Parts: sequence; structure tokens; C-alpha cells
Amino acid sequence: MSRYAIGLDYGTNSCRSLLVDLDTGEELGSIVFPYPSGTLGILTDPTDPNVARQNPRDYLDGMVAIITGAIGQARATRPGFDPAEVIGIGVDTTGSTPIPIDAEGTPLALKPEFAGNLNAYVWLWKDHTAHAEAAAITGTAARMRPQYLAKCGGIYSSEWWWSKIWRCLKVDPGVFAAASSWVEHCDWIPAVLTGTTRPDQIKRGVCAAGHKAIYAEEWGGLPDAEFLAALDPALMDLRSRLYDKAWTSDTKAGDLTPEWAETLGLKPGIPVAVGAFDAHMGAVGAGVRPGTLVKILGTSTCDITVLPNEAGLADVPGLCGVVDGSVLPGHYGIEAGQSAVGDIFLWFVNHLVPDSYGVTVGEKFTEMERRLSALRPGESGLLALDWNNGNRTVLVDVRLTGLILGQTLHTEAHEIYRALIEATAFGALTIIRRMEEYGITIDRVVNTGGLAVKNATLMQIYADILGKPLQVAASEQTCALGAALFGAVCGGTVTLGEVQENCCRMREREYAPIPGNEAVYREIYALYRTLHDGFGIEGSDCELSQVMKDLIAIRQRQRS
Amino acid sequence: MSRYAIGLDYGTNSCRSLLVDLDTGEELGSIVFPYPSGTLGILTDPTDPNVARQNPRDYLDGMVAIITGAIGQARATRPGFDPAEVIGIGVDTTGSTPIPIDAEGTPLALKPEFAGNLNAYVWLWKDHTAHAEAAAITGTAARMRPQYLAKCGGIYSSEWWWSKIWRCLKVDPGVFAAASSWVEHCDWIPAVLTGTTRPDQIKRGVCAAGHKAIYAEEWGGLPDAEFLAALDPALMDLRSRLYDKAWTSDTKAGDLTPEWAETLGLKPGIPVAVGAFDAHMGAVGAGVRPGTLVKILGTSTCDITVLPNEAGLADVPGLCGVVDGSVLPGHYGIEAGQSAVGDIFLWFVNHLVPDSYGVTVGEKFTEMERRLSALRPGESGLLALDWNNGNRTVLVDVRLTGLILGQTLHTEAHEIYRALIEATAFGALTIIRRMEEYGITIDRVVNTGGLAVKNATLMQIYADILGKPLQVAASEQTCALGAALFGAVCGGTVTLGEVQENCCRMREREYAPIPGNEAVYREIYALYRTLHDGFGIEGSDCELSQVMKDLIAIRQRQRS
Repeated sequence: MSRYAIGLDYGTNSCRSLLVDLDTGEELGSIVFPYPSGTLGILTDPTDPNVARQNPRDYLDGMVAIITGAIGQARATRPGFDPAEVIGIGVDTTGSTPIPIDAEGTPLALKPEFAGNLNAYVWLWKDHTAHAEAAAITGTAARMRPQYLAKCGGIYSSEWWWSKIWRCLKVDPGVFAAASSWVEHCDWIPAVLTGTTRPDQIKRGVCAAGHKAIYAEEWGGLPDAEFLAALDPALMDLRSRLYDKAWTSDTKAGDLTPEWAETLGLKPGIPVAVGAFDAHMGAVGAGVRPGTLVKILGTSTCDITVLPNEAGLADVPGLCGVVDGSVLPGHYGIEAGQSAVGDIFLWFVNHLVPDSYGVTVGEKFTEMERRLSALRPGESGLLALDWNNGNRTVLVDVRLTGLILGQTLHTEAHEIYRALIEATAFGALTIIRRMEEYGITIDRVVNTGGLAVKNATLMQIYADILGKPLQVAASEQTCALGAALFGAVCGGTVTLGEVQENCCRMREREYAPIPGNEAVYREIYALYRTLHDGFGIEGSDCELSQVMKDLIAIRQRQRS
Repeated sequence: MSRYAIGLDYGTNSCRSLLVDLDTGEELGSIVFPYPSGTLGILTDPTDPNVARQNPRDYLDGMVAIITGAIGQARATRPGFDPAEVIGIGVDTTGSTPIPIDAEGTPLALKPEFAGNLNAYVWLWKDHTAHAEAAAITGTAARMRPQYLAKCGGIYSSEWWWSKIWRCLKVDPGVFAAASSWVEHCDWIPAVLTGTTRPDQIKRGVCAAGHKAIYAEEWGGLPDAEFLAALDPALMDLRSRLYDKAWTSDTKAGDLTPEWAETLGLKPGIPVAVGAFDAHMGAVGAGVRPGTLVKILGTSTCDITVLPNEAGLADVPGLCGVVDGSVLPGHYGIEAGQSAVGDIFLWFVNHLVPDSYGVTVGEKFTEMERRLSALRPGESGLLALDWNNGNRTVLVDVRLTGLILGQTLHTEAHEIYRALIEATAFGALTIIRRMEEYGITIDRVVNTGGLAVKNATLMQIYADILGKPLQVAASEQTCALGAALFGAVCGGTVTLGEVQENCCRMREREYAPIPGNEAVYREIYALYRTLHDGFGIEGSDCELSQVMKDLIAIRQRQRS
């Protein structure tokens, strides 16, 4: 008899499923469902570019489509496949993506009286309307509860839970008043599948709670009433309609209802795991464990590792995402990231690469990679900072911008592209060094995401700069895979270690640092740090006058 | 009766003439002669990209063509024009461009035994073979004669007189031994026209001598024998075959010989002025006087002003070209410059501007200028350093490189182009401020060169950043005009002031600073200086961490 699990991964523009064989790791079905509402699934407001909302209807329609579709594929792939052998379901989503719900757990957006009122819809992670509220929360916490800020890197973001809910209260008190409670997208989907959508029933995940809602056991759950009252008494009032405890994803959110089982073609009563965010589930799907850093390399990056609770962990400056249990139960989940990686390359190719490299974006990238792979480290004399979208880890500062230095009258686009790749790798190294300074040893780096799979040139540069061998996860759906593994585990019949061992495969091609390159990059990284600290850290003492000269010296050496 | 003068301007790839009416300033004839030898007039060595030589034959052929051609044009333009009313000839050339000559003043290159030996040809200003010799001269001077370095900004260049001659001695002792003497291009042409080419007859110009050959009256002319012997005894020996005194260009080099008068169709015996470099003559042609800065805006810039000798002048740090009489007699000639201006824009358009702006370089510039002229100062949030080709004034450091800062994920090419224009203007302002700090007041800025004439957008940005009204010289041949004016003056019948007043016209369009823009640029210039000093000056104490944030604050203000 086989054992399968299904993972559901809700992204920004679409959701997708993965049906996996828990003994072999074979992926039998995977369906993508693009959200039909709005533009690429996002509801926008022409008068305010900061607005980004979603329609919860898309989530439900997508859920049915991707589960039944994956089952159909599995039947086609494996004769004799029996959906009754699916032993659990797991869910991950974007976040913080809060939804206002009524007393039954129905999103207000689905109720006729709120039709077309975007404030009643889902507040997508990338909604940036709440910057004033974020600043006020940061200011109030700095004054009253500095411990709240320590856990999130010193700044509470406009993308997060309380900012958005408070924003709703301010701009649309009617919606706020109509909401019995609010729920993260990743908590609502398991609640729907298990018929536990009443606010007092929903099992909230610690991942979303800890990262976005200032939840921690050490201060008794959510922020205390006095603090919330200082923001607005209505938020204090809301607190009692939220939750006291949040759960790890090896916990069962509930059992699949007979109705949903029928609709989806699954066995009723199978367990559905407590939900979590996509990156965290992706790390699990990529085989995260102590000593392993999982890097999700996309338009931005998310870097995740874990540390057993018994190892103990001080607050790490600039590491804004340390939450107990957010990735693996019994471990601190440690999350870092770079605000823009692939986005920097896309910006560059779209705005600054002439057609002599090719006409389409793809052609330009291909030709630039061909030419830059012939360069030696340091040969261009260029050095860049990867801050076009600010710096998340370790500086936690959105008011930083990009920098390119070392240009001559002969500098070409592919040299700058290489310098930008190197800059993102130096940024990645800065994160790893910060972890290691605080006792979080990294001996293995597993990469996932589009760039890891498609860009071998980039991967080799990363290996040379990080000075560590790099692996690439075999699955193209590590997030859905991680969700599926928790779906399997939450029933209590298998362990996470066992299914990770079976399912988290690596690609054959690994990237080992080339010793000569590594040595040159160590020199250049010292210069990167001079710029990084100088521009990024107030009051840092930096001697800049040798930076350009040292780069020229390295350039001359590398060209000869 | 009319009075005319002819100016000859020898550039890098061609020479040109100007025949001017000294009473009206009317330009009656101007001919361009592209040098026929080599590639665009330059003889190169495929095994060494630093080699750049010229054929002196081109200078003679060109001289005849451009003088007779200009006379022909004047006859056509003005019925009754009489070449006998040409009262003098003046000459400017590139430099330092030394020529090895025999005892009769014949360039070795024209002698059959040296045919094809590039070391016997003219060593063009941009020949860069002598960098080792330049470094040794700098080192020796630092040890023995620091006063020599003070006058040239602390570094003796590979482009200059002694470096090149010493290089010739090292790589081709046969040529060195065969040379009775060496002569600057600008001194040789007047000597040819006046039949004074014997080394002991040639009247050397103080412009070339002072700027390139370490000549100064205060130490008795050329570098002393002991110093030259420390370089090489053969150079000490050469010293006695050079010159003791150098002359200003209001001095007559000699009288036009009957033979040349016949060949050229001019009156024999008219005076020919002592030669000088093109930029210095160009400043005179643009109307330089105390308080007036002339900026020649091209691929690089040359900034020239003058200060009456009686005003006195200390060494100005970073101002590497102060030579008594190099521009106007009785005045310190003060020369500064930026290593790359138009060259930076050309680099950018050729390497980093996509075809969405246009297909040709011209189309791209036009479209970028259209779009950037709609931006307000600071609106892009970008800041650049204009050091792609090093920094000549005030840092005197070739080991500096370009920098662009402030990029987001939305930064576009025309915004960067504007930042590059602004960077060159900030560099220009830095030069003016340095002058003013040392008592060289600038109350009027006259611009010449391609950028000044063609790029109104750039000129307005310059006016806003320099905070001074800008004029543009009317003549497109200010160098040849300045040479012509000295040709007129050296005969002693007219004064320079008189012919400058008659001939140095300005275009109608002037550029006045826009007060609001000026204020914003003052803020941004403070940030430019932070980067300039930080990256450019050893040991400078700089707080960088506010640079990006201040630019963002300005950007937000300027966008709203």
C-alpha cells in the first residue's frame, strides 16, 4: 500500500498543488491555477498604487481545481492510484495576507453587502497602504515594548498584520466593525477544509503569528492589551476575538469534512495540517535541518535555517525573523532575505541593456551570461551594492538604494550584470556571516527557485563567493512539497525526518567553489563590506579612498 | 583699409584655418584638412596600443592647404579682399607633442634613413608609452625637486615632454642620438614659416614649456642639469641643445619668409606669433580675461582663466596648470580640466542605453534629452561621480573610477544620463570653488566646444549647478581665432584687448540659473562632495550613512 500527501501552495498570482508519493518522493500530480480576479489575481485601485487586494473566491475555486486536477494526473501517471491513500493535506500561502471574516468565518468579501469594497477583501502581503500605521506601531513599540521590535529587526512593516488591520479601521470603520475577527490566508484554508472557520475554532499557525503579528510565548501570545490600546482601543478590543495560542505545522488543524471530501474526491476525515508561509514550507521541502541553509532565489530571496531549541539563541541583530517553531517543531525558525535579487537583474536588462545583446529579454540574458562567464573575478574592476529595493537583512532599511562603482569609459553591460550578480552574492554572504557570528553554523546550502535552476553561471559565482558547495533541490515545487510533508506528518503516523529523507532530493549538478576565485572574492568582499557599512550603518568609520584603487589593482592582476 | 589675421589650429586628426577681419570679427575663410597619414592622422603600432605618432609631412601639406583655401574663400566671400592686408599669422597645436629634429630643424621623420621608424616621428600628445619614465620623473622630483611637482599637481604625466624624450632614449638610442634637438609641434610650425628652424633660432612658447617641460623663470628655465643627470646623463646633455628662455604668444617668432609668402599667397615679412596649445588659444578666442572662465566642453574639458601677475598667486592645490604668460602676457594662465565629460556620455549611450530610446546614437541622445529635461533636480534620486577616466582637477588622480548611486528597481536610462550630466557639472563647480578659495574670482563663464553649442539641456543644468549665468562663444573656431589674434598682435600694431573686443562675440542665447533648481542642487552638491572627498581624499572623515537617505528625501520632495 502506498502513502501519498497533497500540498497546496498559494502564491501571489496563482495557486498550485503537489501530490507526492511519501515513500519514493515521486511527484504524481501538480496543477497551477491562475487567480481569475483582477490583474494576475490582484485587485488594484487606480487612485492608489499601494493597494493590493485579492478575492477569497479565487482561493476556493483554485483549491478545488488544483486538488482534483492533481488527483486526475496521478490516476493517469500511475495506474491503480487510489486517492484514499492520500493521508493528509498541508497548506502554505503568502503572508502577511489577512482576511476580515464574520462570526462564521466567512470572508466579508463574499457577502453581498461588501461586494466591490476592496477593504473587505483580502489584504495581500504586498499591499503598502499601511505605512503610516507601521511607523506608528514602530514608534509606540520603541517607547513601550522594545522587546516587540527586537524580534522583528527594529522596524514593524507596512506589509504586516497589525498595520493592515489598523489601516482598515482608519479608512473603513464599517468593514472593521463588521469583522468578527481576522485570519491569515494560510490559517483560513485549513479551517475551510476542516469546517473550523469560526474564529474561536481556527488553529492559527505560529509561523504567521510569530513573524507578522508580534506573537511570542515569552510575552503570552499576541501584543498585550495596554499596547494595543495605545494604538487604538478598537485594536485592544479585537485582541479578544483573535487567539491566545498559535501552533506548529505538525499539528492538525482539523479533519477533512465529508462535504469537501466528496467535492475533492478524497477520503473524509484525513488530517489537514496547520498552515504556514510559503518560504517556510519551501525550506522544509528543500530538506532544511540544523546546519542547512535553504535559499529561495527568485525576484527576491528568502534564506531559512533552523536551530534546535536546546541550542539556545540570542537575538541576532538584523535577523528579523526568528520564530520558535515557524519551520520545524522544536526548532527556532530563522528567516532572512534580500529585498531584490532577480528583480535587480530584470531591472537592469529591461532598462540598461542595448539591443546589441539581443532583442528579447531572454536573448539579452543569454548573451550577457555567455560573455560574463568568460570574465575572471575582479577583471571588470566593478563593485555594486544590491540595494535597489533597500536592504532587508542585515541592515533592515528600506531607505537604501543601489550603487555601482568602478566604471571606466570601456565598461560594458555584461560586466555590470556580473557585478550585480556578485553584489547579490556578497549580500547573501553577509547574511551567512551574521548567522555564523551568532553560533548558527551553516555547513550546507540548498538552493531553490528559478535562478537556482536556470542560471548555472550565477550559481558558480555564488559558490565562489559564499565559499561553500551549493546544492539545488530537485523538486520545482518545494513549497507545495513542504506543505504536503506536513500534511502527512500531522496525522501522527509518520515523522518529518522520514518523509524529508524520502522526498527531499537534490539535483546531480552541484557547484563547488573554485579556490582561485574564492581567494579573489575574499578581497573584493572586504571592499563590499567597506561600502556596505559606510552607506548602511550610521556612524561607521570607513576609509573609502582605497576602494577604487584596490579594485584597479585587482583588475590589473586579473587581466594579466 | 581692412586688417586681417590668420590662425592655424592643429588638432589630433586634422588642422584648420581661420581668416578673420580684425575690425569686424567677421570670419571670411576656414578650411579643414584631415591628416592623410595613418588612421585619422595617427600612426599606431599593432603590438602596442599606447603608441600614437604623427607624420610631420601632414602638418606641412595641411598648412598650405588650409591657408590657401581660406584665402580663396575670403576672395569669394568679400569682393576686393586683398591678402596683403593679412597682418599676421598665429599657430596653436596639441601638446605635449614633441618632434625630434636635426641641426637644420628638419624632423628626423622626413629623412630617408628614418623612414618607417615611428620613434623618429612626432610623439603625439596621446602617446602613452612613457608611463614608466613618467613615474620615475615623478619619483625623482619628489626626492630632489619637489617644487617641480608642485607646479604640475604632484604627478608628472606620461603624456609630457621629458617622459617621451626619455622614452625615446631608452627604446631607440639611435633616434635620440640623431636628434640635434627636440621641438614642440606648436613651436615648430612658426619656425618653419619664418625660416628659424635651427635649434638655436627657434623661439619656444612658454605655454608648452611651462605646462609640459617643467620650465619656469623662478628656477632659471628648464629643469637643472643635476636633476636631469639623475634621470639620465644623456638628458642633461640634451638640455644644452634646447632653450634657456620661452616666450609669450604676443612675441613674434619671426617674419614670414619670401618662399612661404609666395607659396601661400601672402605678403612676405608679416609676423608669425610664438605658438601655444590649442586650449589656451581657444580661451583667448573666447574672450578670456581676469574674472572670466572659459570652459571648452568636449569629450573632456579644459577650463582656463587668467590672473594679473600683480595680483600674486600661491600654488593652488590640485590646480596643475598655472604658468605665467601661457594664456595672456603679464598674467598667470590658470588651466584646469575634467578627464572625461562628453566621453562619459558617449560611453553611456554606446554601452547602456537600450534601443527603446532610438536606434542610432543621435536618436538615443535626442530622446534621452527630451525625457530628462522634464525631470526636476533630484527627482531621480540618483547621484554620480564623473570619474570614469580618473579625476584631473582637483584630485589629480588617474586611479579613480566612476560611481552611480541611488538606483531603484524603476531607474531609467535617461535618469542616469541626467545624473551623469549633473556629475560633470558638480565636477566643474568643484574646480571653480577651488579657484575662488585661492582668490581667483570667477564672475563670468564662457563656454565653447561641441556640448556648449549643441546641448541646451546640459547648459541649463550647468547654469543651475554652477549658479552663474553661462555664455556661449559665437565662433566655432575659438582656437584658430585666438591664434589669429596673437598673429595680429605680435606685430605690435594692435593690442590684444582691442582685437578681442572686436572679434570675441557671444551667442545671443545665455543660460541663467533657475533659483529653485539652484537651491536643490546646492543640497545635492553637498552630497557629491561627501562622495568626492570620501573616495578621492585619503584619510578624509566622511559620514556616508545619510547620503542615500538624503537623496530619497530630496526625491520625495521634488516628486510631490
